Amino acid sequence: MQHFRNGRDESGRDLITAVHGALEEFLHDRRATVALASAEFAQAVDALSGLVLGGGKRVRPTFAWWGWRAAGGDLTSPGTEAVVRAVSSLELIQGCALVHDDLMDDSPLRRGRPTVHVSFADHHRREGWRGAPERFGMASAVLLGDVALAWADDMFFGSGLSAEALARSLPVWHAMRSEMLAGQYLDMLSQVRGDEDAETALHVNRLKCAAYTVERPLHLGAAIAGAEQPVVDGLRRFGADIGIAFQLRDDLLGVFGDPEVTGKPAGDDLREGKRTLLASAGLRLAEEQGRTDALAELRGVIGDPELDADRVAATRALLLELGAVDEVEARIDQYTDSALRALTDTSVTEEARGRLTELAVSVTKRDQ
Amino acid sequence: MQHFRNGRDESGRDLITAVHGALEEFLHDRRATVALASAEFAQAVDALSGLVLGGGKRVRPTFAWWGWRAAGGDLTSPGTEAVVRAVSSLELIQGCALVHDDLMDDSPLRRGRPTVHVSFADHHRREGWRGAPERFGMASAVLLGDVALAWADDMFFGSGLSAEALARSLPVWHAMRSEMLAGQYLDMLSQVRGDEDAETALHVNRLKCAAYTVERPLHLGAAIAGAEQPVVDGLRRFGADIGIAFQLRDDLLGVFGDPEVTGKPAGDDLREGKRTLLASAGLRLAEEQGRTDALAELRGVIGDPELDADRVAATRALLLELGAVDEVEARIDQYTDSALRALTDTSVTEEARGRLTELAVSVTKRDQ
Repeated sequence: MQHFRNGRDESGRDLITAVHGALEEFLHDRRATVALASAEFAQAVDALSGLVLGGGKRVRPTFAWWGWRAAGGDLTSPGTEAVVRAVSSLELIQGCALVHDDLMDDSPLRRGRPTVHVSFADHHRREGWRGAPERFGMASAVLLGDVALAWADDMFFGSGLSAEALARSLPVWHAMRSEMLAGQYLDMLSQVRGDEDAETALHVNRLKCAAYTVERPLHLGAAIAGAEQPVVDGLRRFGADIGIAFQLRDDLLGVFGDPEVTGKPAGDDLREGKRTLLASAGLRLAEEQGRTDALAELRGVIGDPELDADRVAATRALLLELGAVDEVEARIDQYTDSALRALTDTSVTEEARGRLTELAVSVTKRDQ
Repeated sequence: MQHFRNGRDESGRDLITAVHGALEEFLHDRRATVALASAEFAQAVDALSGLVLGGGKRVRPTFAWWGWRAAGGDLTSPGTEAVVRAVSSLELIQGCALVHDDLMDDSPLRRGRPTVHVSFADHHRREGWRGAPERFGMASAVLLGDVALAWADDMFFGSGLSAEALARSLPVWHAMRSEMLAGQYLDMLSQVRGDEDAETALHVNRLKCAAYTVERPLHLGAAIAGAEQPVVDGLRRFGADIGIAFQLRDDLLGVFGDPEVTGKPAGDDLREGKRTLLASAGLRLAEEQGRTDALAELRGVIGDPELDADRVAATRALLLELGAVDEVEARIDQYTDSALRALTDTSVTEEARGRLTELAVSVTKRDQ
């Protein structure tokens, strides 16, 4: 554990290595166990392992780790390895979210590689099996997402945390998963209803991202450490605001991101009809500016699965011109400022305050 | 808890009432919590509660309960209510399995009512929302199954079992869920590959049903009670055999069951192309008897989604005529006998032995 004592200097890279190692060890053990039950199932599970071990920013484990450190989690204690395993398990919840989300959105690519449901459908097609390849792809993705969700629990509860730490973190763990699923449901519901208001977009952000990605991981880490209530409250306020800013950055990347960097096709959020604050701001500004042409154009573009690169480019220009991008950028700054104020008011170690400040900036200014 | 002290006399009905009550209380509390996050999500979750509270034989909680009782679980101890909650959580795992299974098989009905993905698609259609109703139905079923799986853990780990009992049951809980998912995957794989051998059919049975439905629930209950290894081993041997017999009965009902009683369309297993031991025996017997016509007919019928009532009736007659039904019935008897011998050799309380013997008979001779 020595190597990420100086988290600040190393920009968290060594924590990420440790998280990767913990996941690798867990998945390796699990593969051996399920292979005893079925070689075919073990092979299927490799697709999940490939996704979980194949990268990602490890945002949730990082926030959970620093929630623990901020609340006084002691690097020299023998329980540190258990904490690494516990926070790493968040990547398996995220594995479930990714596999099921890609299926629900029918996304073809994830980190530049075919998504699970697409690759299992391809496998079915190559083997010339019975029935529709898409159905096999769907069913495989459903089951592998379930595996990830079940194994997240297994890894968390089998992490080696003390019974007291587990008892303290149990309500947080429960709330986090329910909020993640509630957020995904609301996200989808707002897409099919075609919601245009900023309220709904922010509500989805709050659940889907703020709570699940930043606030609850920080809360979980603090609960593991046995933090006092004022520290928990302060970290949660910080996390809630950074979480929203994080998601707003994601919304901008979903339209303006470089596919080479994000690993997703350009303008994917538009095609999927995501009801983001960016979309909502664009629609409202077009209306306020009396731009009925722009309003109709935006309404037509959001949720059009056939959207081509030219229209994505035109939509980008339109959102910039209307001032929607500036508005979202301003919101990101506001939420980040508010988060940093909450952190200033919270009694945490200096090292953690420094690292959380860096993280706040890096997740809200990133390009992927 | 007083009322199911005499489990034998009451044929377990009071245990079933207690399981229902525990689930109702848990789901009621959860609904209140998620309603704070999102009223729409709370409403969606009602579909899951309806399914979980809407009936079912509570087979898994019953076996888990009697595993606990068999290993000396004490009805007069203050922890009895916690055990009821812990074993009831198995119904939430089953809730996930049902919702996801119905989606994967595209089954229209469950217990005589529209399945989750079908009813959410209908809702989308009625509301005139955007996009394909089927996609919304699919996504809702994916998420609600995830909710059930996550909540199963929440209920189990929040049941109030002692830290020692939780630690003992943790590996069993983990194994059970992985085996359930492995079984579902293998089941689906054997359908698309069109496997015809008895081996694969029995392997799927062993994982999907024997382990998950009988053996592991018994094992879980015994682990909660802190059973000695020989008792655990004996209960598992009993459970493995009864589980297979249970599934073989299910296979017969999947073809010969009365839709009025099973709540599923007649011959549904044939339409779905399930690779059961019944199907495998039919194919083998047709081949052995040189009935190439019957062989071709069976191969055509298994997995034909358009199968009508007349052809289902003809297939039933053919399976009877070939002797496949007799063969499966004989296997059910063999496995039941072997299970009961294992039980005789195991040191459990007389009350539990009596009740487990009754359960063994009732789950292998049932008509629904």
